[in-house]
Amino acid sequence: MPLDDLKTPCLILDRAILRRNCAAMAGRMTAHGVRLRPHMKTAKSADVAALATAGHFGGITVSTLAEAAYFAERGYRDLTYAVGMAAAKVEEAAEVARGGCRLSLLTDDLGAARDVAERAATLGVRFPMLIEVDTGGLRGGVAPDSEDLLAIGRLVDASDALDLEGVLCHAGHSYHCNGVDEIRQVAEEERAGAVRAAARLRDAGLPCPVVSIGSTPTAVHAAHLDGVTEMRPGVYMFGDLDQVSIGSCAMSDIALSVLATVIGHNTRAERILTDAGGLAMSKDRGSDGPDAARGYGQVMGHDGLYVDSVHQEHGLIAMAGGGPPPYDALPIGSRVRILPNHACMTAAAHDRYHVIESEPEVVEVWDRVNGW
Amino acid sequence: MPLDDLKTPCLILDRAILRRNCAAMAGRMTAHGVRLRPHMKTAKSADVAALATAGHFGGITVSTLAEAAYFAERGYRDLTYAVGMAAAKVEEAAEVARGGCRLSLLTDDLGAARDVAERAATLGVRFPMLIEVDTGGLRGGVAPDSEDLLAIGRLVDASDALDLEGVLCHAGHSYHCNGVDEIRQVAEEERAGAVRAAARLRDAGLPCPVVSIGSTPTAVHAAHLDGVTEMRPGVYMFGDLDQVSIGSCAMSDIALSVLATVIGHNTRAERILTDAGGLAMSKDRGSDGPDAARGYGQVMGHDGLYVDSVHQEHGLIAMAGGGPPPYDALPIGSRVRILPNHACMTAAAHDRYHVIESEPEVVEVWDRVNGW
Repeated sequence: MPLDDLKTPCLILDRAILRRNCAAMAGRMTAHGVRLRPHMKTAKSADVAALATAGHFGGITVSTLAEAAYFAERGYRDLTYAVGMAAAKVEEAAEVARGGCRLSLLTDDLGAARDVAERAATLGVRFPMLIEVDTGGLRGGVAPDSEDLLAIGRLVDASDALDLEGVLCHAGHSYHCNGVDEIRQVAEEERAGAVRAAARLRDAGLPCPVVSIGSTPTAVHAAHLDGVTEMRPGVYMFGDLDQVSIGSCAMSDIALSVLATVIGHNTRAERILTDAGGLAMSKDRGSDGPDAARGYGQVMGHDGLYVDSVHQEHGLIAMAGGGPPPYDALPIGSRVRILPNHACMTAAAHDRYHVIESEPEVVEVWDRVNGW
Repeated sequence: MPLDDLKTPCLILDRAILRRNCAAMAGRMTAHGVRLRPHMKTAKSADVAALATAGHFGGITVSTLAEAAYFAERGYRDLTYAVGMAAAKVEEAAEVARGGCRLSLLTDDLGAARDVAERAATLGVRFPMLIEVDTGGLRGGVAPDSEDLLAIGRLVDASDALDLEGVLCHAGHSYHCNGVDEIRQVAEEERAGAVRAAARLRDAGLPCPVVSIGSTPTAVHAAHLDGVTEMRPGVYMFGDLDQVSIGSCAMSDIALSVLATVIGHNTRAERILTDAGGLAMSKDRGSDGPDAARGYGQVMGHDGLYVDSVHQEHGLIAMAGGGPPPYDALPIGSRVRILPNHACMTAAAHDRYHVIESEPEVVEVWDRVNGW
């Protein structure tokens, strides 16, 4: 089906670029000697996971238990749920584990770990457990040098329902870095912090086979990954304007776009209106990287055209620097493809990908697992 | 089912408040002597539409053709699609119309109106057509005093496939007003502009039975609606922090909240972590009203607790003014309800409502029509 026959707004995913991005990351991790456990929070698609795990061991990372169930049903058997676990969610996790999956959980709290262990024991299910370590993101996680790290490690190790698997870090603050040098520094702090936490657990006589770190920026730019066993980047599969702005990928590496129809010309406001508004693009204003402040997306193939503002179902496209946009080149009814600021947020508004292979022709339709 | 048994994050909709909001708006419009054509873009639910149309003629407004098809299937027979129409979408609209619906379309462009008329004629379907008028929002619409208004009016009136129905305005800029006086002024500009456009069409011998205006702020605060025939507010059904901040509703009028589970305590960052992140809340930072800058939502029942920042599946809750949040009152595993900045955007991430009647007990589950 040609793109012109699709209902808009909708997602277009270029498989040629996706394949290249996946192969590049897989090769990079192989060269570093670490396992790639791709984070499926961006793509939420088994078809994408098949490409992202190629050449590695097949384990993946998920951001919701709905993702865990979806991927388990589709044959993925080694999952890490990389969000802090609460006891109330153990029953849902147990359903996935009972299907034969290895589902690793995450904790950074002694009381929560105890509650999860008790609930798992009651349900008669065993889970591998990772301890979340914070190396500067100030989201979740204990400090690498904290007493909590060892206390949680001892509790998990002593539990009959949990297996202490290791440590996990996510340097989410790498998304806000100002250029590659700063990313390298965050990457080294992430690596060193995780390795330090692992060493402390091992020195205390506790097992720590897994040292899991990673975000796309740090996975791309880490100088070395000594002591790390696995990386969990996610957004590199699709790329987006945020990643371009901080130097994690090039514009030509962005595999995801939103197909939109031009629905109006507002010559007084010097705007072209499309049907890709705040719902279709998300209201993510993008990172605060050096090339930020670009509105809500950029129009492919039209230098300087960007989504200046959004209403629920309207996107208003303007020329960078002002002046009238090219009305004649984009008449009402014509189609544009818009590159997203933040692929994770934009993709989440849509229930499927229209897959192309460089040419403007849909070759497959892939589903997504949204919601919770 | 008690709220504590729900998977989180999820939407909670308080039907008692919803009913009160719907009845108040219906009564207000009856008092003004205008028809209420509630905008279903926020709720996207037939169950909500049943309450919103009570006491009025049953017509509704939709923001996507997916909504049009959904509501048509559920017995709604008088729909206005309040987004500028492109010819490429006529076939989808025709499917709705062929099912026996009156589906009004919208245009602000002579060429687009001609293309839509031609496509409708080819398909053998007739549509009522409204002309979009801009009274200051600078999104879509022709100026009330423009030549375009009359030219489009003549073209639509002369078309065999379109019936000129009237004019439509949306004063979306009322969302950015600084208090009630400013909203009143925008409301009067919206009313006067629409009435002026209608008078010009009629003076030119063209039909204009419908003068349709409205946003929630202007519907709530308009001093009078002389010359207007129908209003199309939407977000009033649920209310949100944006509407509170500009004076369109009170905190106690907010019917929608996101139920979240506490998944962490970050004592170093002085944050409580929940599982309602940027996807569950949306990344809408809210209006720029006088009480803005409140992050991504406020925690019900805990004064000063708000969602300070969001990651995809993490919400970080802080105390307004700083200091440690009440960890003891909100242990890991406990539940919070978070009021949204912008109900339209928050609801769109979810596929259903868990309906309560004031008490923390789910009495019904209502679906939503998301996507396009």
